[in-house]
Amino acid sequence: MDCESIQREIAATVRRTKEDCPFVPSITNSVTMELVANAQLAAGGSAAMVYLPDEGEGVAAAGESFYINLGTVMPFYAETLPRTVRALHEHRRRWVLDPVAIGIGSLRTELLRCFRAMPPAVVRGNASEIIALANLWGLDTGAAKGGVRGVDATDSVGAARPAAEALASFIDGAVAVSGEWDLVTDGTVTVRSEGGSPLFTKITGAGCSLGGVTAVYLAEASPFIAALTAVQAYNLAGTRAQREAKGPGSFRAAFLDALYRAKPGAIAENPFALI
Amino acid sequence: MDCESIQREIAATVRRTKEDCPFVPSITNSVTMELVANAQLAAGGSAAMVYLPDEGEGVAAAGESFYINLGTVMPFYAETLPRTVRALHEHRRRWVLDPVAIGIGSLRTELLRCFRAMPPAVVRGNASEIIALANLWGLDTGAAKGGVRGVDATDSVGAARPAAEALASFIDGAVAVSGEWDLVTDGTVTVRSEGGSPLFTKITGAGCSLGGVTAVYLAEASPFIAALTAVQAYNLAGTRAQREAKGPGSFRAAFLDALYRAKPGAIAENPFALI
Amino acid sequence: MDCESIQREIAATVRRTKEDCPFVPSITNSVTMELVANAQLAAGGSAAMVYLPDEGEGVAAAGESFYINLGTVMPFYAETLPRTVRALHEHRRRWVLDPVAIGIGSLRTELLRCFRAMPPAVVRGNASEIIALANLWGLDTGAAKGGVRGVDATDSVGAARPAAEALASFIDGAVAVSGEWDLVTDGTVTVRSEGGSPLFTKITGAGCSLGGVTAVYLAEASPFIAALTAVQAYNLAGTRAQREAKGPGSFRAAFLDALYRAKPGAIAENPFALI
Repeated sequence: MDCESIQREIAATVRRTKEDCPFVPSITNSVTMELVANAQLAAGGSAAMVYLPDEGEGVAAAGESFYINLGTVMPFYAETLPRTVRALHEHRRRWVLDPVAIGIGSLRTELLRCFRAMPPAVVRGNASEIIALANLWGLDTGAAKGGVRGVDATDSVGAARPAAEALASFIDGAVAVSGEWDLVTDGTVTVRSEGGSPLFTKITGAGCSLGGVTAVYLAEASPFIAALTAVQAYNLAGTRAQREAKGPGSFRAAFLDALYRAKPGAIAENPFALI
Repeated sequence: MDCESIQREIAATVRRTKEDCPFVPSITNSVTMELVANAQLAAGGSAAMVYLPDEGEGVAAAGESFYINLGTVMPFYAETLPRTVRALHEHRRRWVLDPVAIGIGSLRTELLRCFRAMPPAVVRGNASEIIALANLWGLDTGAAKGGVRGVDATDSVGAARPAAEALASFIDGAVAVSGEWDLVTDGTVTVRSEGGSPLFTKITGAGCSLGGVTAVYLAEASPFIAALTAVQAYNLAGTRAQREAKGPGSFRAAFLDALYRAKPGAIAENPFALI
Repeated sequence: MDCESIQREIAATVRRTKEDCPFVPSITNSVTMELVANAQLAAGGSAAMVYLPDEGEGVAAAGESFYINLGTVMPFYAETLPRTVRALHEHRRRWVLDPVAIGIGSLRTELLRCFRAMPPAVVRGNASEIIALANLWGLDTGAAKGGVRGVDATDSVGAARPAAEALASFIDGAVAVSGEWDLVTDGTVTVRSEGGSPLFTKITGAGCSLGGVTAVYLAEASPFIAALTAVQAYNLAGTRAQREAKGPGSFRAAFLDALYRAKPGAIAENPFALI
């Protein structure tokens, strides 16, 4: 893969998504679920969030891809998530996992452990979450030992590269690491995407909604291209929103506007490089 | 009812609502509950959301009307919703039902079926949801067979007219159908309201919050006038917000501003016609 | 304490918070949790919301302070909240309580009653909630009998002064009463802070997010200074946002911008007086 062919695929993915409006359900974080849904709509998808086991199974089968974010685990997720992931597996639906706050609580850990046998097509997280998930699944991460503080990373994006590549190879999909720059890898090809805004860290749900938008693109592209398209769209829209914003409140609105308006070519041409 | 007398009633409803600030609790969708509450406040009401059975009963009795939205069903709704609806019935409180995502999951279906015996004063939904509810309740809908895809309609507003009228007659109340235009009916009189914005489909909760605002007006008006007042307010505020918006992020804020600022006369004069 | 030394402490608290970015988890209201998180980020903190008992215990120990808001009680809070409060007590973590909707439902009342033995460092609420909590805990409040209507106050801020002072003394901390003006007291020193905007009553979560920001400052200051710093920051940012806002939608965004941009000195110099 060279940069030009990647750019063509990104632009085609954005275009197809806006034409097809894929239905992409989620089981996700209640803090940020409104932003996830709004970002998915802005990118051209159709969103729905559910909680119950049979609803998870139903929308897993009905959706074109799926998003699972572990941000705020509720007691009934003990049944809902395994059943939903099993349904995704049976119906061969690809999904994105966002292992938010990995390490907090026993149910979260148990659920993440159980996903190993029926893994997602894409994992998206900050550097510490990616390292922690690779460690939890017993992958060789070059002995990195990630530190999560609540929902924040304490590791650099670069430090998570071995873990991200190991994880991508293991799931035979892609991994996106968010941070001061963004890394996307399929285990063999690894890309560095630039742009965005420091204000992304000042609004809750920037990462969660990136995961949700990745799931939307996953209905239309390979795991690697879906993950990279979402990262590129976020970096472009973040750069543009930053110019207009007076702070995090206006940034959030300007970001959704910019995501909605971003043209396929502009998303493809946001700066990135093979590393 | 002629258009002029309807307009007078709409204007009076908006005015009384701003004076009285009715307390209108909800059991509602967690994705969109913030927008529901903010729209209810913008219209002049007071909002509160609850989850527990005894809290549902308590606020059913304390509220002047009520809003129930089935968007994100949680396990305990199996107890909360029947008890709350029974309390609404006993205290003769009128309520609005939003049958979001009808057809997904067994509990959702069971709850919707159980509401038939103690029906709402207003049902609000998209065309497919209205057709599906009329079918679930065994009403004669001219043999329409609605199709819901997640939370989106696959039927046109016009195709839902027989179902809407049958439903309104059955509940002896009103039904509002949202879509490319809006239909409001009490089973005998049917109205077409124009305006709004295509950006309503690009923010999550436009329909849910319309249901919540309908419940606010229901504290001050008949089901038909309450439903039509809310639809007119949304179409006016949507039209105005569209002019200023650069995308869905700025549209959401501009819409709440416009809803808050809309004068009674302007809401009454938004274009509508008896059909 | 004179006003000048209070101002110096306020400014120092704001400054330290932005430097340290304290991790301040919450168990909070699902209607307003996104605004709580965004306001905590704007003030310089790091936020995380949880639901499960062992997660409550875990983040109670990991956090530097904590926020508990009873707005939307879920069934499992019966276990989560007592265990979390016990963990806060054992780890000597200070926390802010927001007794939203006190009086609705039996579990909410039982939880609030159980907090009496392991009390928060700060209580924040509207006048009616503060009076109701002081009454529930059997404190001498000058025989005030508060009336809560859903989530709104029916008492004036001034009427809640005896209850607020009694409550602050009992918990050996501070109490903040929100309303047409804001009262902050440690039981001995009582302050009146001015500013803000009437639009605070037109967005859901203004009070909840003030509680969340108080918890952030509580990681860096005494209960009294933390509560007053948050109130001053809100009154300043509300005043500034009011100037730009066209209604509640634009106010919400402008408020977060203003909170994020407010300088330590400006927060300290927002008008307040010892009363």
